Amino acid sequence: MAVYKKVSFEQTEAFCRKAFQGYGFSEEQSVQITDVLLAADLYGIESHGIQRLIRYHKEITSGLVDLKAVPEIVKETPLSATVDGHNAMGQTLSIWAMELAIQKAKQSGVGMVTIRNGNHYGIAGYYTRMAAEKGLIGICMTNSEAILVPTFGRQAMLGTNPIAFSMPAKPIPFTFDAATTVVPRGKLEVYAKRDGTIPDGWALDENGHPSVDADRVLKNIIAKSGGGILPLGGAGEGTSGHKGYGFAMLCEICTAIFSSGLTSNLACRAPDGAKTCQFFMAVDYGMFGDKDELETHLSEFLQQLRDSNKADGQDRIFTHGEKEYESEKRVRAEGIPLNEKTYSEMQMIAEFTGAEDLLPTPHE
Amino acid sequence: MAVYKKVSFEQTEAFCRKAFQGYGFSEEQSVQITDVLLAADLYGIESHGIQRLIRYHKEITSGLVDLKAVPEIVKETPLSATVDGHNAMGQTLSIWAMELAIQKAKQSGVGMVTIRNGNHYGIAGYYTRMAAEKGLIGICMTNSEAILVPTFGRQAMLGTNPIAFSMPAKPIPFTFDAATTVVPRGKLEVYAKRDGTIPDGWALDENGHPSVDADRVLKNIIAKSGGGILPLGGAGEGTSGHKGYGFAMLCEICTAIFSSGLTSNLACRAPDGAKTCQFFMAVDYGMFGDKDELETHLSEFLQQLRDSNKADGQDRIFTHGEKEYESEKRVRAEGIPLNEKTYSEMQMIAEFTGAEDLLPTPHE
Repeated sequence: MAVYKKVSFEQTEAFCRKAFQGYGFSEEQSVQITDVLLAADLYGIESHGIQRLIRYHKEITSGLVDLKAVPEIVKETPLSATVDGHNAMGQTLSIWAMELAIQKAKQSGVGMVTIRNGNHYGIAGYYTRMAAEKGLIGICMTNSEAILVPTFGRQAMLGTNPIAFSMPAKPIPFTFDAATTVVPRGKLEVYAKRDGTIPDGWALDENGHPSVDADRVLKNIIAKSGGGILPLGGAGEGTSGHKGYGFAMLCEICTAIFSSGLTSNLACRAPDGAKTCQFFMAVDYGMFGDKDELETHLSEFLQQLRDSNKADGQDRIFTHGEKEYESEKRVRAEGIPLNEKTYSEMQMIAEFTGAEDLLPTPHE
Repeated sequence: MAVYKKVSFEQTEAFCRKAFQGYGFSEEQSVQITDVLLAADLYGIESHGIQRLIRYHKEITSGLVDLKAVPEIVKETPLSATVDGHNAMGQTLSIWAMELAIQKAKQSGVGMVTIRNGNHYGIAGYYTRMAAEKGLIGICMTNSEAILVPTFGRQAMLGTNPIAFSMPAKPIPFTFDAATTVVPRGKLEVYAKRDGTIPDGWALDENGHPSVDADRVLKNIIAKSGGGILPLGGAGEGTSGHKGYGFAMLCEICTAIFSSGLTSNLACRAPDGAKTCQFFMAVDYGMFGDKDELETHLSEFLQQLRDSNKADGQDRIFTHGEKEYESEKRVRAEGIPLNEKTYSEMQMIAEFTGAEDLLPTPHE
């Protein structure tokens, strides 16, 4: 079992900003990438946070990310833009795209931006929160390397294909952000770094049988030799795994089909880019009614959910976004939990990028 | 165990049309209501088909449905309409609303119609297919009587809250239509009419413990005494039940919050209407690229999914909408399967509405 220590959030932020500049990103880009990456740690989504720095390191140094790429709008209407991302860094591309969707929503009521030849962009909820901060609904999706095995299959054909949705509410915005697989790939990476065993009901081996071996499943995925993660709802149709598969399809359509990009089964195979596809949407819900009244209505319903009767042995019902909000306060005060494997990767990256002087010191 | 027989589709269609006219609906309305109701039987979705006629009978005769209601647009933009349904019959209201969304999408690219004070409308996929037939993306959602217990709760707070999505493809449109619960309420009704036992992982009793007793769960729901159906993903967070709960919230926001209507926990309590809320959306995806190319791209990906490797012991991978398409051909040829309880309800309704002469005769 890997040992966990903690590093200060501020120190890690300063370190990441310098490290990304070390790869050749501008200061503004480095701030953006760091902001998205560490938002995951703040929200307690370890799978998408600093433990994934090594993956970005590999993508940047192997040429999968084009540091100088400028996104190109290939088709545009007042409500929409279809964008070729030209293998730009996912986080900078996606912040730009959500800002474009927000601008269109403010002008026309709805803004939709679909991207082909994009890259891994971190947590989807980061971008939907951008819209919520501007008083809009935010929706965001991405396809990704094939990892989801469709119902009755044994070959990964869809990505984890997360769908995120935010709407302003008091005291915090409602933010739902979920892979359409039972769990995201990053969660397997976390378990692989711990003791290698995953709970039953998450994944299939290369023959389409259930597996609890995180390493085996991840290796199969990388080697494209079969198996993968189950769709939300699990194996077969008994508990409706075909529904998770359907939500993953909805994501695939809004990303790869709308943008004329690569579907998940074809993405992440080229030497010059992951070429994943994204979708960003903003909606000014003032078109439906008085915005303050709608927000109050949502806030009241969220409170009714929190106040509703608990199951035997449970003392709290969460609404989506609450855990992340509370985690943020905790992580800013106490630091980011880090296992030793991740820390050794940070040491290597510090050396590579010339950011050794800002490498955070772990504490208990 | 209830005995199943079959009735001719054409005879059942003629019977339903006459029965609905017997309640006082116009000929056009009766055709519409019948069309939506029996689409469920054609698609093999027994839970939402003729077995539910008794439920509509009760709603119509008890005054929950206002036969003379005319929907009122209370707010409108080129992209949207907010509608007070005034307790009109769900199917006629919803066909009208999806036609309005389609008209807006043809003119402006996107059309969204949100309804308050609506009613049960049958299968969501009926309406999304209407958009697909016009060469558009269709999206449709409805909230409903509270039946979904949020993660860690024991009180039903959200409806089955289905989300449906269609996009044109060859040879048949992609149509995903799924309750965000593990199963819809109608499936419990079907099991209750059989031997009363449901599979594990579907429902909770009044204390928030797992239950396989369909009658007990349904009675608790009707009496609002606790328990209900689990969200997609199951109990707790181990296999991500909080995600199904989140998708149900997305539905609740687009329906009850956008329309300023009743959330599921407050709907279905008034004597004069179910007062559920609906959301209809159409998108002209030509804004993103050449429509024929996008449709071809989707059709090819669907074929790749069908052709992908099967799990040990499986010989087919379905794409969403295929089962319904094949079922339709079978049911038109062989008839609608019917259990004896449903048939006796039809006999009572035939007498009540003066449609005895068109009551279909069951065959083996």
